[in-house]
This record gives sequence, C-alpha cells and structure tokens, in this order.
Amino acid sequence: MINYHLTPDQFREQGKKLIDWIADYYENIEQFPVLAQVKPGEIKASLPDSPPQKGESFDTVLRDLDEKIVRGITHWQSPNFFAYFPSNTSFPSIMGDLVSSGLGVQGMIWATSPAATELETLVVDWLAEMMDLPEKFRSSSTGGGVIQDTASTSALTAVIAARERATHLESNKKGVRQNLVAYVSSQTHSSLEKAIKMAGIGSENLRVIEVDDRFAMQPEVLKKQIMNDKSNGLIPFFVCATMGTTSSNAMDSIREIGEICRIENCWLHVDAAMSGTAMLCPEYRHFMDGVELADSFSFNPHKWMFTNFDCDVFWVADRKELIDTFSILPEYLRNKATESGEVFDYRDWHVQLGRRFRALKLWFVIRHYGVEGLQFHIRKHVQLAQQFAGWIEESEAFDLVLKPPLNLVCFRCKGDDDFNMKVMNSINESGKAFFTHTKLNGQIVLRMSIGQTHTEERHVKQTWELIQQTADELA
Amino acid sequence: MINYHLTPDQFREQGKKLIDWIADYYENIEQFPVLAQVKPGEIKASLPDSPPQKGESFDTVLRDLDEKIVRGITHWQSPNFFAYFPSNTSFPSIMGDLVSSGLGVQGMIWATSPAATELETLVVDWLAEMMDLPEKFRSSSTGGGVIQDTASTSALTAVIAARERATHLESNKKGVRQNLVAYVSSQTHSSLEKAIKMAGIGSENLRVIEVDDRFAMQPEVLKKQIMNDKSNGLIPFFVCATMGTTSSNAMDSIREIGEICRIENCWLHVDAAMSGTAMLCPEYRHFMDGVELADSFSFNPHKWMFTNFDCDVFWVADRKELIDTFSILPEYLRNKATESGEVFDYRDWHVQLGRRFRALKLWFVIRHYGVEGLQFHIRKHVQLAQQFAGWIEESEAFDLVLKPPLNLVCFRCKGDDDFNMKVMNSINESGKAFFTHTKLNGQIVLRMSIGQTHTEERHVKQTWELIQQTADELA
Repeated sequence: MINYHLTPDQFREQGKKLIDWIADYYENIEQFPVLAQVKPGEIKASLPDSPPQKGESFDTVLRDLDEKIVRGITHWQSPNFFAYFPSNTSFPSIMGDLVSSGLGVQGMIWATSPAATELETLVVDWLAEMMDLPEKFRSSSTGGGVIQDTASTSALTAVIAARERATHLESNKKGVRQNLVAYVSSQTHSSLEKAIKMAGIGSENLRVIEVDDRFAMQPEVLKKQIMNDKSNGLIPFFVCATMGTTSSNAMDSIREIGEICRIENCWLHVDAAMSGTAMLCPEYRHFMDGVELADSFSFNPHKWMFTNFDCDVFWVADRKELIDTFSILPEYLRNKATESGEVFDYRDWHVQLGRRFRALKLWFVIRHYGVEGLQFHIRKHVQLAQQFAGWIEESEAFDLVLKPPLNLVCFRCKGDDDFNMKVMNSINESGKAFFTHTKLNGQIVLRMSIGQTHTEERHVKQTWELIQQTADELA
Repeated sequence: MINYHLTPDQFREQGKKLIDWIADYYENIEQFPVLAQVKPGEIKASLPDSPPQKGESFDTVLRDLDEKIVRGITHWQSPNFFAYFPSNTSFPSIMGDLVSSGLGVQGMIWATSPAATELETLVVDWLAEMMDLPEKFRSSSTGGGVIQDTASTSALTAVIAARERATHLESNKKGVRQNLVAYVSSQTHSSLEKAIKMAGIGSENLRVIEVDDRFAMQPEVLKKQIMNDKSNGLIPFFVCATMGTTSSNAMDSIREIGEICRIENCWLHVDAAMSGTAMLCPEYRHFMDGVELADSFSFNPHKWMFTNFDCDVFWVADRKELIDTFSILPEYLRNKATESGEVFDYRDWHVQLGRRFRALKLWFVIRHYGVEGLQFHIRKHVQLAQQFAGWIEESEAFDLVLKPPLNLVCFRCKGDDDFNMKVMNSINESGKAFFTHTKLNGQIVLRMSIGQTHTEERHVKQTWELIQQTADELA
C-alpha cells in the first residue's frame, strides 16, 4: 500500500535527531552573531523558487536548516540578546509545546477536548494565585482567565468587550454609532491604537494622555480630559493602564487611574505584558496596587516566564460581559455540555475559534520550576539589571536615564543622538550582543533589557565592557 | 551556582522520552475512545488546586499526562475521527513546529529575524504555485500571502481591510460612521458574523443571502440585495464567498459572485478554510473558477494539509491596501530594513504584533511529502468519501443528502431527527468512532468528514458497519 507518511518508528529516529539538534543549538548559541548579519532577500534567494515535486529526505531538510536558515536567525534565545523585550523559553516549555503539537487537539469548546479547556482553567487559576491577583479574576468567582496568542489580541478583546458594555451590546448589532472615547498614555503600547482602529472606534477618538517625569500616565490629566470629553457629549468608555511600558518599563498608577475609571464608568484594562511576570515575587507587587479596580488584566508568559511564544494570559473580572460580546453558536458546534452551562467554551472568550492546547506548556513550566524556581530566576534578572544600572551611574561616559523599576535599563552615552545610534549599531553589527533603542522626551535612549533564560552575570558584564570600549573608540 | 534550568543534556534525555511518548501515542491511538468519555469538571478535579511550591520531576509530569490528561482528550488524530472538520497533522509538521519552539524567534518584522519572514514569503509563494493561484497573489506581483492563526482572524483581517478601502482609511481615523453593508450566505462560517461585529460594522448590516438546493449562495439574490441596499443609500463593501462550507462543503460560484463584486466595487474574500487544500490537485480546481476576481483568499493547512494547528494562509491581491490598514511603527521597532522598503514586515499584515516562526512546519511538510505525496493523500481522502457516499446511496436504511463535492458526506438515517441524533450519540459514546451533525433545510443531517492523516479504507468501512448496526438496533 503506497503511503507517504512517516511511521512512528521513523519519527522516533528523526525526532530524536531533532532533539539533539536543539540541544546542540543551545550549546553553541553564543558562537552565532546575535543579530542576523544578512541582507534583505538573501535567505530567500538561497532557497529554490519552486516546491519539490517529489519528497525529500529529512537529512536534506536538516542540512538546509543548518546551512541556510540559521544564518538568517536573530537569536532571541542567546544570553547576549538584550534587545526589545525578552521572549524567552525553556526546555520544559519546548517539551510541553511538543506534546501539544503531537496530540493535535482542538480546544475551541469544552466538548472538542475537555482536558484542553480544564487544564487551561486550572493553570490560569494557578497563575492568578501565584501572582496574588484579586479573587474576582478566578474561575471560581465571576471572572476567569484565558490563554490568548498575544497582548495585542488581548487588548483588542478588551476594547471590544468595553465597547459592548458601553453600548449595551448595541454596537455589535448596529455598528459603532456612539461617540465613544478611549484613553491611553503617550507610552502605551502601539497595539492599543491598532485595537481602537480595528474595533471601529477610530484613532481620533483615542486620547493620548501626557506622562510624568517617570513616563507614567498623569491621572489628573486623564480626569480632566474625561471631563472635557463628557462636556462635549462624548462617551468615555475605556482606559488602558500599563504596568511596565515597552519603551522604558514605566509603571502607571493603577489605583489612581482605576479610581477615575470606577467613577466615570470606564473599562480599565491593565497591560502588564512583560512586567506581569514579576508579580510572582511579593516584593514587586506594589506595582499592581489597585489592580482590584481593573476589568481586565493581561500578561505574557511568553515574554519573561520561560514559556515559548505564543502564550498571553488575559483575565476578566466579569466573564459574562466577555461571553455576551464574543459568543456565536452555529448548529454544527451545538452539544450537551455547552447547553448545560456547566463548562467554559473558550471560543467565546476571544477573537479566534480554533484553539491549540497551549495550557500544556504552562503546566510543564510551572511544574518543572515550581513557584520558587520561577521567583529565583526573575529576581536574578532584576538584580542583574540593577547591577548594570549601577555601573552606568558610576561611569562618567554614560547617563542613566531613569532608575529601572525592574529588568529594563534605559541609558545614554554622553554625546548626541547620532553618537548613541552609532555605538549601538556598531555593537549590533559585531554580533557579540544585541540591544535596541527608543525615544524618550524626543531623545534617543538605549535600552538594555535583561530577561533571557540563560543570561548570567558574565554576559551582562561582557556587554557592559563592549559598550564602554565601543563608545570610547567611536568618541 | 544555583540554577533551576534543565541543561542541554537533560533536555536530550527527557526530550527523547517525549518523542517516544508521542510515537507510542500514535501506535496506540485506536485503543482510546475517540470522543473523551468524561464529565464536566472531572479532569480539573483530578489535579491539584494549587501550583507546586517546589519543582517536580519530569517523570511525574509524564505520568500525570498519561493518567490524568489523555483520558480527557478527544483524539482528533485518531483515524476514526470523522467529526467537525479534519485538523490533521503529520510527523514532519510536528518536527517543524518543534524547531520553531526550540529556536524561539520573533518574526514580527523582518529585522527581528530575517529568515522567519523570508521563509514565510517563500512557502506561501510555493503554495500559490502548488494551488495555481492567480499571479496577483504572489509576492513578486502586487499581493502576497501571510500565515495567520485561523481563518477567523483572516476573515476579520479581510473585513477590516475592506472597510478601510470603502472609507478611504476614514474609519480607521474617525470610527465606523458610514452605512456599510456586507454579504454572506446562510451557510457562511459563523466567524464572518463575528468579524462584522468585532469590526464595528454591526450584525444588522450583514445580509444573509439565500442558498440554492446545493447550499451555494444565489448570485442573483446577492445582486438584487446589493441593488436594494444601494437604493436605500447604503454602501455595499464586502462579500464572502465560500469554497467548501463547514456544514455541507457547499461551493459558492466564485466567478458569478466575483463578477458582481467587480461591478459593485465590493471586496471579495474567498474562505476556503478546509477545501483550499484540494486545490493542490488540478482535477478539483474547477471549484475555484473565478478566483482571479477575489481580493483575498484564505485556507488552513492546519485542517487538511498535514500541518498542525495553527496555520492559516491568507493571500491578498494588493498588499498595499492591507499594510495601509494595519501598519503601526513605534520608535522602538524602527530599523533600516523597514525604512528601506525592501522587506516585508508581516506585523503590518494582520491583527497581532508578535509572530511565531510558523513557516518552518509548512516547509517541513512540503519538503517531506513533495507535491505528489500531498496530492496522493488528498485524493485518497476524497476517494474514501465518495466510496462512503456510494454505500449510503445503495443502502435502503439511509439517504444521501447531497452528492459530496470532496471529502465530506452529508447523510441521514431514514427516520426523524431524534432517531438520527440517537444513532450518532450512541456511536460517539461507544468511543469507536466520532462524527457530528448539522442542520440543513431545518433537518438534522449527519456528517462524515474524512481527512485524518492515518484514516484508511478499513476505518471508514468499520465505521459504516457500526453506523448500520447501530441504526438497526435502535430502529
């Protein structure tokens, strides 16, 4: 009988080669330039324009992976990766995700694979406990959590649920006809503006509130703007507070913003995409003071919690509002469990219908590390960042732009913007380390983001020496 | 030095155990009940309420996987799974996805990992060639493809891009203020209604066009409705044609609908989520006759093309319209390559910002099977479905509801709706096979969807015997 599939035994052989390939990759990762040193089009041009008519051997694919793909990779898992934000992973997470790929089940509703839904409810409740989130966000209360792909999608979900709350589900029916207004700060992640556009609110109805000298939203300016909008007949409906902005890790005051939201009847979404992970440690929880005032809260275990992309967790205080907004029930998905009301159908908690079994990787990670293992590594990252900030402060050639709340250090070489960019680009082009920039108060600022799984003191130290040396040479 | 991470050598050992675990799973898969036989809450109740303070051993996790999780799994990869739609996978895909988890790179823009973007452009161009899609959908022309998570998100992307085309990017700025109207058929996937709601258009502005006796949209009714809406001052802007509806695999006439769209200036989105895969075989391409009239086209390799979830491919004829709709460029993501205009930044092609390296699994699948291997297995599934339909037709106790265009057979036991549901539920509860129902013309219809990777003639035959026997016993 002709059959092009691999047998389980062939998979045993090839799959194990691949496990070795990944282990080798991590053993050798420091030898690769962190930032890929390729030109646009170079990788594509090295591969055949047309697909193969006949199947090829696994070894050929593996060879091309080594020779043609890896050189076009920017190594996010390198311990010398300090760019953007961490998107770290870990071997337990890779294994949990492998089980998910292997089982290949759909968790769109409870009935399509009960364990996928129930393990998800379990691990997001575990996380709520580990982070000491308010009771209302737990599945045993009025709310609950759900795994989404990204914080962008969670933001969109929050905006749409807020829109429907404000319009009593009218905009789902008639379209956006009300004069809704939303609020972010000038430091809020760009995905919020994108969400406001996608949801049909319009970017002109997004108010960008000014920040203070620590780049946190000014609550009194927010309050004033809301008053102003109301007096113009507009309907304030949504505020996003950020716990740890992308640019500079700024911490909005959730309590002050939350109190305004409660009075003004606005949905408060807390975007804690990166810094949410720090809530595993009690000593950092003051940053989320006031979180009991939030309607939704999201963070990305796929950023700093050793869990591979994609894995964002989105909690709501009132799941009924969410489900009323997103629920659809075509005949071919009707089933007894759904109709009983005893189960969660996570399809109704977000944009997508299809769902991968993503709870597995979180389950593997939490069980492997335990709460104490995760706390240990998060604390270490924060400590390394504080140490780096200390070196910057002591140095005469550099300025610390602001005291880092957690694991992101914003600094400048003494000199103009061009000089700062030159130093950064020169290091990135060396392949020895990779970090990126932002703009704060109109000025270029360099960012050292510390959160890769295998980053140790020596990597931070080497990079600091490299930065000093490069700045010195280019001065 | 304290460290909770696994070493590469520990990963070698445990990862290989997991490869064996997956191989064993596939060897034993026919022994599990296809539909999980658990009650709501049962799986969650079998696991600890609180997370572990200290880390646990890998073997403990693996034991719980066997003893507590697998029993709550509905086995989508079982060769006796005939429910809903296929969501098949294959060993090459599992391995490609494993590399993606292992590398853990972010492909949100070209600069964050050039190979992730360029391999994606390559494989979606390969697919366009393999399916003989019009030139305009290729990256070398005005359009291009992008990997999305699900057809639902692709539909939302299409709706929003169409909205911005119709309003000249005004609704992105001012919100949805125009009287836009969209069109689907009564058989269109529910994600389209969800998209219309999410995008702020409103479900009352979605016209549900009647279908003919083969459940395909009636173009003349569409035309009439558009005329009617225009004469009422409304703005028709979007039509979704389906190639293979979820309920019954009905085929809308893309040509007739497309010609109306061209005249009426509506965006035509073609949803080919499942049946798109059949376009790999020239003999089925008549179903997409007229596709050159489409503005966007999407299908899910994660349904029928041996590629594990999530993997939807979304093509547009004019990428500029897409990018103008979704583009955002915060300072911290600015880079030379983006500014040169020489690269694709796929972040601007959809909802999300973060992106997994999903092209790898498609690349592994296409290279392993080659075009001819994929064609072989698709043809076999279609042939099995046609064979099953033949048995139904010959039988006196069953009715074939309609001639199956491809791999989905809609049939009924002679008897009322309750009897049909009883037969289906009884088989599903036996765990020997799993199939689901829909409603067509107000009547319950049973669906036999044939597309699992390891489904052979014997599985279809056994299930047919089981259906006959069960119907006979319950009659």
